[in-house]
Amino acid sequence: MDSFLHHQQLIERALKDKAYGSSPKELYEPIEYIMSLGGKRMRPLFVLIGCDLFDKDVNNAVHAALAIEIFHNFTLVHDDIMDKAPLRRGKSTVHEKWNENIAILSGDVMMVKAYQELCKADIELLPALLHVFNDTAMKVCEGQQLDMNFEKLPKVSIPQYIKMIELKTAVLLAGSLQLGAIIANAGNEDAQQLYEFGKHIGIAFQLQDDILDVYATTEKFGKQKGGDIVSNKKTYLLLKALEMAESNRYMKEALQQWINAPQFDIKEKVEAVTEVYDFFNIKELARNEMKKHYNNALTCLNAIPVNPLKKEKLIALAESLMVREN
Amino acid sequence: MDSFLHHQQLIERALKDKAYGSSPKELYEPIEYIMSLGGKRMRPLFVLIGCDLFDKDVNNAVHAALAIEIFHNFTLVHDDIMDKAPLRRGKSTVHEKWNENIAILSGDVMMVKAYQELCKADIELLPALLHVFNDTAMKVCEGQQLDMNFEKLPKVSIPQYIKMIELKTAVLLAGSLQLGAIIANAGNEDAQQLYEFGKHIGIAFQLQDDILDVYATTEKFGKQKGGDIVSNKKTYLLLKALEMAESNRYMKEALQQWINAPQFDIKEKVEAVTEVYDFFNIKELARNEMKKHYNNALTCLNAIPVNPLKKEKLIALAESLMVREN
Repeated sequence: MDSFLHHQQLIERALKDKAYGSSPKELYEPIEYIMSLGGKRMRPLFVLIGCDLFDKDVNNAVHAALAIEIFHNFTLVHDDIMDKAPLRRGKSTVHEKWNENIAILSGDVMMVKAYQELCKADIELLPALLHVFNDTAMKVCEGQQLDMNFEKLPKVSIPQYIKMIELKTAVLLAGSLQLGAIIANAGNEDAQQLYEFGKHIGIAFQLQDDILDVYATTEKFGKQKGGDIVSNKKTYLLLKALEMAESNRYMKEALQQWINAPQFDIKEKVEAVTEVYDFFNIKELARNEMKKHYNNALTCLNAIPVNPLKKEKLIALAESLMVREN
Repeated sequence: MDSFLHHQQLIERALKDKAYGSSPKELYEPIEYIMSLGGKRMRPLFVLIGCDLFDKDVNNAVHAALAIEIFHNFTLVHDDIMDKAPLRRGKSTVHEKWNENIAILSGDVMMVKAYQELCKADIELLPALLHVFNDTAMKVCEGQQLDMNFEKLPKVSIPQYIKMIELKTAVLLAGSLQLGAIIANAGNEDAQQLYEFGKHIGIAFQLQDDILDVYATTEKFGKQKGGDIVSNKKTYLLLKALEMAESNRYMKEALQQWINAPQFDIKEKVEAVTEVYDFFNIKELARNEMKKHYNNALTCLNAIPVNPLKKEKLIALAESLMVREN
């Protein structure tokens, strides 16, 4: 990501300079707080990259980049309430630090703030930007609902899962790139191709995350290894293993026993489920699915007639984000 | 309100024809539900009236009217979670009928849907409409936060209370009229005057509601009489009574005793607190404050150089909404 240092500095400065409001403080302190917790700022970076690809000065895209980052953080605040998550980036979530009502309402304010930021764009760009932003926002909400639905469903198919992560995660990366392209006056078709690139890259990123949860060396990934296994999270790996186990009664029973176990030793469960995954070669299958989307992404990017050096830089960024494993 | 029958029919038809989405149904059924619960639809009516005042075909304002009504209902869904309200318009609230997570997320979707509806406006109007809409939405959220803060504050002044109801309730009526005026290509100053009319009328409406809670004949008001007294709601009446009681130790103690009573007979409390109100002539004082805002509203409206007949019709509507008492 270092090769986009200038872009990143622009984003950090804009975030630092942004004032959200002051009164009532119960509304604005949580916004300052969540926005200051950091993160990779990948979505605003994608807005600037989308703009830069089409040779427009990225300063024009900073407002849209901020809008996307504020929107993304709004979804985190509300998602954390819904998931009853105590921590976000190692710190207390908003509803934990304050309370649920404040988290709901300051989240609502963030959504409006995101629109306010987006509306600073040139008037002639506004309809196209708003169209993409609204459409993306809708899909992100739908993805979150599907994710919650899946927790309670006994069976989720791989295509259903891919659709969910597309909506919940990938379209926001896709929309970010597309906003940048629109600001750079890219043609409709090119902006759409860039959206598709972002969508497939986003799906590939999520699949990579699913793989890393089980197969990363803990220190590099920075999360507790096997967290998804412990919580029976319906990731690509688990869903694929369940699908494969349909034709292997012994493995199916073993897997179901671990899923249904009311109490268990964490290390033991992670090892046992990983053994089932290994038996079915799930890591390889997940990597194939990931590579498929990654290659789809590259095909989309290649079809866009822009400076090949800039495309290479974007591909290098995508690869650096994909090979976090080792 | 009957003299705006054509406007109201337009709104009802638009609401009836509006499709919000279908999948995932957990997201869209609550939206259909809350939007179908009815209500006076006063805010969308105000959008059409704002447009009609400046002699523009109100069909041009239907999208903005829908946007405002969807936004208003979004605030109801989220406010009901925060207030833990079981009922809305005599039916289960969304979080009661489904659950809190669904209420949070379908509310979020409604906010986006409101923007989508607003964005159907002519491109040259979009920046001004969005500016008013964003600004209004921010203020409504701030008002809700102040309202929640006030519940926990030992002392709230009358100016603080008026500011809170301005933000929570009045600005949405004001913004509705202003959106209509913008769509009708009204001048900035006229649109702003109409906003001020709406703001003062909105404050007057809320003060009227505060009065009616205590002094309405139950059947006409349609709510349990004295509900605000029972719940110690910091209305204009209670705050004014507390202010007046500062110089009357006996009354102050009587009022505080009822406020702090952990258990009580509802009828007894309502009667006793009403007696304190009557002692201080609170009804009259509240009506004076209401009339002050109503007169301010009329002054603003009179300053707008539009067809006097249309202004009279709007005043008649406002009056019919103000004299619900008897």
